[in-house]
Amino acid sequence: MKRRISILGATGSVGQSTLDLVTRSPDRFEVVALTAQSKVRELAAAARRTGAKLAVVADEARLPELRELLDGSGCRAAAGQEALSEAATGEADWVMAAIVGCAGLLPTMAAVEAGKTVALANKEALITAGQLMISAARRSGTTLVPVDSEHNAIFQCLVGARAEDVSRLIITGSGGPFRTTSANDLRNVTPAEAVSHPKWSMGAKISVDSATLMNKGLELIEAHYLFGLESSRIDVVIHPQSTVHSLVEFIDGSLLAQLGSADMRIPIAYALSWPGRMETPAAPLDLVELGRLDFEAPDLERFPALRLAREALEAGGGATIILNAANEIAVDLFLAGRICFPEIASMVSNALDRIAAPAPGSIEEVTALDSETRAKVSAAARESCS
Amino acid sequence: MKRRISILGATGSVGQSTLDLVTRSPDRFEVVALTAQSKVRELAAAARRTGAKLAVVADEARLPELRELLDGSGCRAAAGQEALSEAATGEADWVMAAIVGCAGLLPTMAAVEAGKTVALANKEALITAGQLMISAARRSGTTLVPVDSEHNAIFQCLVGARAEDVSRLIITGSGGPFRTTSANDLRNVTPAEAVSHPKWSMGAKISVDSATLMNKGLELIEAHYLFGLESSRIDVVIHPQSTVHSLVEFIDGSLLAQLGSADMRIPIAYALSWPGRMETPAAPLDLVELGRLDFEAPDLERFPALRLAREALEAGGGATIILNAANEIAVDLFLAGRICFPEIASMVSNALDRIAAPAPGSIEEVTALDSETRAKVSAAARESCS
Repeated sequence: MKRRISILGATGSVGQSTLDLVTRSPDRFEVVALTAQSKVRELAAAARRTGAKLAVVADEARLPELRELLDGSGCRAAAGQEALSEAATGEADWVMAAIVGCAGLLPTMAAVEAGKTVALANKEALITAGQLMISAARRSGTTLVPVDSEHNAIFQCLVGARAEDVSRLIITGSGGPFRTTSANDLRNVTPAEAVSHPKWSMGAKISVDSATLMNKGLELIEAHYLFGLESSRIDVVIHPQSTVHSLVEFIDGSLLAQLGSADMRIPIAYALSWPGRMETPAAPLDLVELGRLDFEAPDLERFPALRLAREALEAGGGATIILNAANEIAVDLFLAGRICFPEIASMVSNALDRIAAPAPGSIEEVTALDSETRAKVSAAARESCS
Repeated sequence: MKRRISILGATGSVGQSTLDLVTRSPDRFEVVALTAQSKVRELAAAARRTGAKLAVVADEARLPELRELLDGSGCRAAAGQEALSEAATGEADWVMAAIVGCAGLLPTMAAVEAGKTVALANKEALITAGQLMISAARRSGTTLVPVDSEHNAIFQCLVGARAEDVSRLIITGSGGPFRTTSANDLRNVTPAEAVSHPKWSMGAKISVDSATLMNKGLELIEAHYLFGLESSRIDVVIHPQSTVHSLVEFIDGSLLAQLGSADMRIPIAYALSWPGRMETPAAPLDLVELGRLDFEAPDLERFPALRLAREALEAGGGATIILNAANEIAVDLFLAGRICFPEIASMVSNALDRIAAPAPGSIEEVTALDSETRAKVSAAARESCS
């Protein structure tokens, strides 16, 4: 039987790679729904190509245009928050949750509550609403298959493992473009230097997170919720070649690792075909050509964001929401040339100190705390910059 | 329910490690039978310590001594081939097949035919009788859990995998003590140099196999039978740190690897507790302390034994029996100072060229061809040395 697929965020990078893989295996997959924030041309083209039955644009102002583009295709056009939830809960039995940012929270939660198998590419889902998502997944019996290469690696290493046999998770990271930059020189690095990631081709925000190591901190938080291990049993190790995507240590002293080239189509394909696998166009990994793999400890002095993320996770409540929102504002300010690189972590640290952080009881409370934090951090920044 | 354990070869290195692990977890394991070639004192002591019900010594001349040592213990003493088979097929539901050499073939086969879960440490079982063992395992529904660190690593990486999703196995090897020795200098290496293995502490014969890379060739043959992949889909990669014990490549471009310190108690514990795991006293692996992992291609010019093993596997029939027997004789001659290091591979190559190799139809035919090869290779050696 074909797996019926819904892609939330079909015009983004993960959505496009998912579409690429799905259309290579028309015998295995049937696309039933696609959504986009505003790119109606790409959305309509993908809907026509895949024979999707429902195409949803989040921005309601674009609905007439989408209707026109889909005229005669047999694909229904819809818009707005309710239609997004329909795409997440309708005919599909597998949902790619790839909407970026807090806008992805409600549709992702809808898919989880509807008991779909959810391929999770939206980072905010676990960072800001981890406890809510995991509780909902437990209630509905949903499996969350992580798409992020690190968590996907751990997920692969855990196949067939009993929880009591796992002793530790080891998340690897390239170390970013400033791995060997001195603390002094970090004060003068530019946004252009920060976004030139050595291994993965990514957007500006994520590239800066990779440079501050905040991305590893956020992944630590996600791993905690996904795999149920406390912070003290999740390590971060710097591995410049980005070939070992992460590892699991077991009680017997064994470690399992997943390796592969830096190609997001591998984890996406695994999520698509789990619990099986499918062929991908990714280049095979040649260990001999690679020659060498290095590992080193992360430097928490130069990269305090990783320490802040661990502290936020351990503090509990809404601290990770504040961490995430403050970091986004700070990264924007850095990219705009308004603050220097080390100030990103300082702003996050200040926000964690200043803002109260009750545990959110609903997605609405998550987004409220997220908005409040953004407003406060922005205001504080305006003050200190003026 | 406790797993009922029988250890064939309880006084050897693997047998002793198995006993060590079993006695650390008396709540999980009950030892029902132990066997030894001739070391009756160690055998009797282990039987008393574990409360085994049956102790078997292969050498029938030692039976009176064993009887005396076990007097009043409640453990029955027995000797000879039939008693070995009884230990392999009796009350146990899990059998460690750790008898060294062709002497292990019949009791191992008996355990396989009796449908026991068989932890396989006897190398000859698959190298010389692979097709017979695998066919018997299929008929009886036995699972063969390999104990060798490389095959155990692959077995761990294959948990939950479908055969059609596996594209390649990658066996790693340290490269041995002569990894960087020139072809010219290999003519002058001594037995003492050959047995000083850089990573694993092993017996003389296996250490020489590690130096010639014949051990990787033999492991290639074992992997073919254990995991059902043809020779062209099994690679050997040199990895001097011996930390990655082997890898599996999947059709999506993912690789899974098992890592660990060079401690045989890890794979033995995995075999003991499969499909679960158990704690071991093995030192945990610290990737940061390790710092670096290297990989390179094996040099088939300097180490032709690996090529010979692959050719023997591909030739089929009894060629791998000839390979194994000729290699043992040649290694003995090298250790005795009678031939030089490169002549080990030459003798094996000559034997493969000269001796006819029909596919064996029974364990008896396997041991007959093994004996015939040993006699012929020894005779040829006496001629050329005189």
